[in-house]
Amino acid sequence: MRVGIDIGGTKTAAVVVDRNGTVLHEVKQPTGYGAEEVISTVTQVTRQLADRAGCPVSDFRSIGIGIPGAVNTATGRVDHAVNLGLVEFELGAESARLLGSPVVVENDVNAAAVGAYRLVNGGVGGGAAGGDSGPASTGSLAYLNLGTGLAAGIVLDGSLWRGATGVAGEIGHIPVDPSGVICTCGQRGCLETISSGSGISRQWPTDSSSPVHDMMRAATEGDEVAVRIRDMLFDGVATGVRLLVLSVDVQSVVLGGGVTSLGQPLLDGVRGVLRTWSSSSPFLESLRLDERIRYIPDSFSAAAIGAALIGEKTHD
Amino acid sequence: MRVGIDIGGTKTAAVVVDRNGTVLHEVKQPTGYGAEEVISTVTQVTRQLADRAGCPVSDFRSIGIGIPGAVNTATGRVDHAVNLGLVEFELGAESARLLGSPVVVENDVNAAAVGAYRLVNGGVGGGAAGGDSGPASTGSLAYLNLGTGLAAGIVLDGSLWRGATGVAGEIGHIPVDPSGVICTCGQRGCLETISSGSGISRQWPTDSSSPVHDMMRAATEGDEVAVRIRDMLFDGVATGVRLLVLSVDVQSVVLGGGVTSLGQPLLDGVRGVLRTWSSSSPFLESLRLDERIRYIPDSFSAAAIGAALIGEKTHD
Ligand SMILES: [Zn+2]
Ligand SMILES: [Zn+2]
Repeated sequence: MRVGIDIGGTKTAAVVVDRNGTVLHEVKQPTGYGAEEVISTVTQVTRQLADRAGCPVSDFRSIGIGIPGAVNTATGRVDHAVNLGLVEFELGAESARLLGSPVVVENDVNAAAVGAYRLVNGGVGGGAAGGDSGPASTGSLAYLNLGTGLAAGIVLDGSLWRGATGVAGEIGHIPVDPSGVICTCGQRGCLETISSGSGISRQWPTDSSSPVHDMMRAATEGDEVAVRIRDMLFDGVATGVRLLVLSVDVQSVVLGGGVTSLGQPLLDGVRGVLRTWSSSSPFLESLRLDERIRYIPDSFSAAAIGAALIGEKTHD
Repeated sequence: MRVGIDIGGTKTAAVVVDRNGTVLHEVKQPTGYGAEEVISTVTQVTRQLADRAGCPVSDFRSIGIGIPGAVNTATGRVDHAVNLGLVEFELGAESARLLGSPVVVENDVNAAAVGAYRLVNGGVGGGAAGGDSGPASTGSLAYLNLGTGLAAGIVLDGSLWRGATGVAGEIGHIPVDPSGVICTCGQRGCLETISSGSGISRQWPTDSSSPVHDMMRAATEGDEVAVRIRDMLFDGVATGVRLLVLSVDVQSVVLGGGVTSLGQPLLDGVRGVLRTWSSSSPFLESLRLDERIRYIPDSFSAAAIGAALIGEKTHD
């Protein structure tokens, strides 16, 4: 049995998978802030999973951790994970010491890409990805995360492609709007400033617990500001899909992250943009971008499952 | 011995390489137009190389052909190569029949990427890539061709990455200028409309045999229109480099194609743009984009050598 843990900014999901990648048990709890709290979260969810599985923690052959930040995957060190208050923290070594099992640490979007790849190609999680079409199976895939930020994880020929310096898929920081706002990265009008949870919250300030859904509701009711924000969201995601296909040419682009809780309307909106583009470009039309996208159902813990699979690959 | 042939729009270059990838002989001649003429060019250069090598054509263990067009690499069929007047032509099968050796056919930019990879990592062509810096060796590389069009070939972990549908690296058709002209692909303001030979010829009409050099000279002399075209060229190439790194995260981006005959001033101009961007973005600064680029010297027949290496890989 393998453990996979997805440490999110607010909550942590953890799974136990068997040798076939089937999820046996899953637990969730709020994530603590800071090194001590994060480690405590990791050990707690792991022990809960051991309880559920009725075995000691030492029976887990590996523990994979996905975390939103910059990670040295070779050493398991987190260089920085701003939202969790971690800087240069030996998360892998510390977790391994406390739990007694081998630990691997990976960026959460990369972990989710591995989970999404397994989902799309079958054999895990007990269901197909959401959406009404998309290729049945695929040798290459990008997981496009529309969370607080925007970034992609890339799987080529079944293997995670991190790039030469670990920034493969960081398309959220490609500028697309010359008249846009300054991004946290210092550039102007990055894709992330438009098509991410933080981008929408900035443009649509509200007391609602979900600015994305609030904006979407207002757009549906015809609010002009909301319509503009929504259309830019769709346009930005479509731009990201086009970028991923014209650079890496992945077979599928799987959408995930908080913004995809919008569900089918998001998929329809993005496909609408892609079809409009294709109608004036035979070249784009031939790429069938609209058929390459799909989304992950909320119920599928892509990053936790992916982290477990990465652990398996590293410590088999 | 292996043969590699680079069929260009106007001239064809062909090489014989030995088992170490060292170029033993090289010939060049004008390229004919249309199926019959292209086949004739292929057989002529191959026989010339056999003469030079003092052996029969049948001694060549494989013949690799790079061609500017859409190719089915599995069958050697050219779906279309507009500038050569080829449509649905069985170039591989026909060449193999006439020459009696196994033939592989590849898109010329992909072939050049393989040649550039060998150049950067040593062991062929007898020299290092041009430019005053850049990584000494590299596991991943993009060859960014600034020719009539603009496209990249991508080598990851030493292997050519064609993508799921053969369009990996087609970043020339990513729109970057909302106020730009309509591209041949039907979209507006594609990168190719700005930073390619055809893009410059369109903006700088002249009787000169080299619009690119003519524009550059005028820009150096202070012509305002030329300065604007030159600055957009630099900016567009820098945009392409940023795109390739933030999507694929290649270690090196090797510039090639006719426009790179501008040499060091082009490299300096592009690096200048990248450094300006980095000065306001710690994130971009950390990627060291300016240090990732280099260019291929005119004398290095990247596509011909790459085609020979692809033949070796396919028929070893
Ligand atoms: Zn940014
Ligand atoms: Zn185009």
